[in-house]
Amino acid sequence: MAITVVGSVAFDTVETPAGRVDRCLAGAATYFSLAASYFTDVRVIAVVGEDFTEKEEAVFAARRIDTRGVERAPGKSFFWQGSYLENLNEAKTLQTDLNVFATFEPKIPDAYQDSEFLFLANIDPVLQRRVRDAMPNVKLVGGDTMNYWINDHRENLLKMLAGVDILLINDTETKLLAGSRNPVKAARDVLGLGPKSLVVKHGEYGATAFFGPDSFASTSKNGNGSDSNHPFRAPALPLAEVVDPTGAGDSFAGGFFGYIASQPELTPAVFKRAMFYGGVMGSFTVERFGTERLQQLTREEIEDRFAIFRELTHLD
Amino acid sequence: MAITVVGSVAFDTVETPAGRVDRCLAGAATYFSLAASYFTDVRVIAVVGEDFTEKEEAVFAARRIDTRGVERAPGKSFFWQGSYLENLNEAKTLQTDLNVFATFEPKIPDAYQDSEFLFLANIDPVLQRRVRDAMPNVKLVGGDTMNYWINDHRENLLKMLAGVDILLINDTETKLLAGSRNPVKAARDVLGLGPKSLVVKHGEYGATAFFGPDSFASTSKNGNGSDSNHPFRAPALPLAEVVDPTGAGDSFAGGFFGYIASQPELTPAVFKRAMFYGGVMGSFTVERFGTERLQQLTREEIEDRFAIFRELTHLD
Repeated sequence: MAITVVGSVAFDTVETPAGRVDRCLAGAATYFSLAASYFTDVRVIAVVGEDFTEKEEAVFAARRIDTRGVERAPGKSFFWQGSYLENLNEAKTLQTDLNVFATFEPKIPDAYQDSEFLFLANIDPVLQRRVRDAMPNVKLVGGDTMNYWINDHRENLLKMLAGVDILLINDTETKLLAGSRNPVKAARDVLGLGPKSLVVKHGEYGATAFFGPDSFASTSKNGNGSDSNHPFRAPALPLAEVVDPTGAGDSFAGGFFGYIASQPELTPAVFKRAMFYGGVMGSFTVERFGTERLQQLTREEIEDRFAIFRELTHLD
Repeated sequence: MAITVVGSVAFDTVETPAGRVDRCLAGAATYFSLAASYFTDVRVIAVVGEDFTEKEEAVFAARRIDTRGVERAPGKSFFWQGSYLENLNEAKTLQTDLNVFATFEPKIPDAYQDSEFLFLANIDPVLQRRVRDAMPNVKLVGGDTMNYWINDHRENLLKMLAGVDILLINDTETKLLAGSRNPVKAARDVLGLGPKSLVVKHGEYGATAFFGPDSFASTSKNGNGSDSNHPFRAPALPLAEVVDPTGAGDSFAGGFFGYIASQPELTPAVFKRAMFYGGVMGSFTVERFGTERLQQLTREEIEDRFAIFRELTHLD
């Protein structure tokens, strides 16, 4: 079943202890759609400038990602420059040029309207909500956001959150959004704002899912007969070298949501496996600069790494 | 099979957002031995002052912990005062009075010499090594340390590490000891210093075990036939309220080592289950001030929580 994703398609210049790349293809919607494309059909809504050429288009085409919703506008694409030289866990932003993104008005091709899944990557919550409202047929909506929207656009964000089924954010964002420093209480607070489930990403320590009472439509018990409202924690893979952490979270979201979209029903068991696939896709992304690793994966490599994630956490 | 533990038996005054306790029974050897006592026989080597009364003795006696190696010295017991008001994840030390601990000379009762397991809790590495050398019959040695010994007593610490089979330290200590910020490379460095296995504790995110080539005496494959040298990650339980984080790490070590000592052989499967029991005991400790919760557990409560840890991490 197809996923539509709205978010940024951008160029990044990134410096890390492993080296530097200039103007590589990036952006949340790019990482998300490449990661999800190993599981299901993906359709992108974004805007790019005249610097987005056949070379970039070919990256999407090679993964059969539908880019009819990627508008070409006069000017330059969104550009971000950051450095991880001081801290591999947190980028220092050196430059942000919104360029064509500053006046982005998402346009949804009619052909996208039969998408059953929608992912609202991190952009202005007003745009996220507009896209959500314009796609009334979707059956599951995932979303992301960031500190800036939580701090300075909270009212708009709260309206957006009311329409999201699964929210994927990190520890800091969760605590900011909730106003509590305790992870369990913060999760409860966020679930009270609309999302049926919350996936809190912990960077190198993985991610934890918290479930509200309506997380799963047709069942409140999982396959083991145990209460589906218990949290679930998926690991990240301890890696000897992280080349470029950019896009790990968006790749997590792509693997997570892509796997869910590939399954007939969202059950607790599917949700848990999706958390593992999210971690798997994030672990590949950081092995190379930009989206390089995500462009050349095989499903076999993905399954092999899934097995390593299982072995990393399972008693037997 | 019995464990001997050497370390501090102390009184703590602790302030947390949940309240304050004055001079409660504490110390690494206390937390360790109480946690381990639910799995196996425990013998303590420590020193206490005249403020250690029948009331404190009764806490050990109730768990049938052997205290013949706890020396009574003139003066006061080790005292620590700390606050978690600013940060529940890291104590702010307000006062440390070594008292009788300043001249501690561990004395090992003959009756302890048939212990097969030895745990060197966080004290001066010179004393840790002395105890280790004085117990040549032990078959497995666990150890802990802290920043102070890593920074200012490195040479003594390295001599101690050469005699430790399983080292349990936290993320910061691992990076300090190794000189690498990458968790996998840092773990490799530490394993190169002597320990056969390394358990890195992540606080609220659990713990990761790294294995050297000699981690397991009789096998290099675990039950699944998979390579035992892959790391293993155990979770911590997301808790809605942490009353007092003091002693969580020592309780982890006690549950971990106690479970290992209760098993006929140290296999990869036993090691992994021990990581879970470590997390379980740590999760109980932080629910109340001091050792209160550890004093009144049942094996059934421990097994119930073990099942929750499994559900938190296992796909099926």
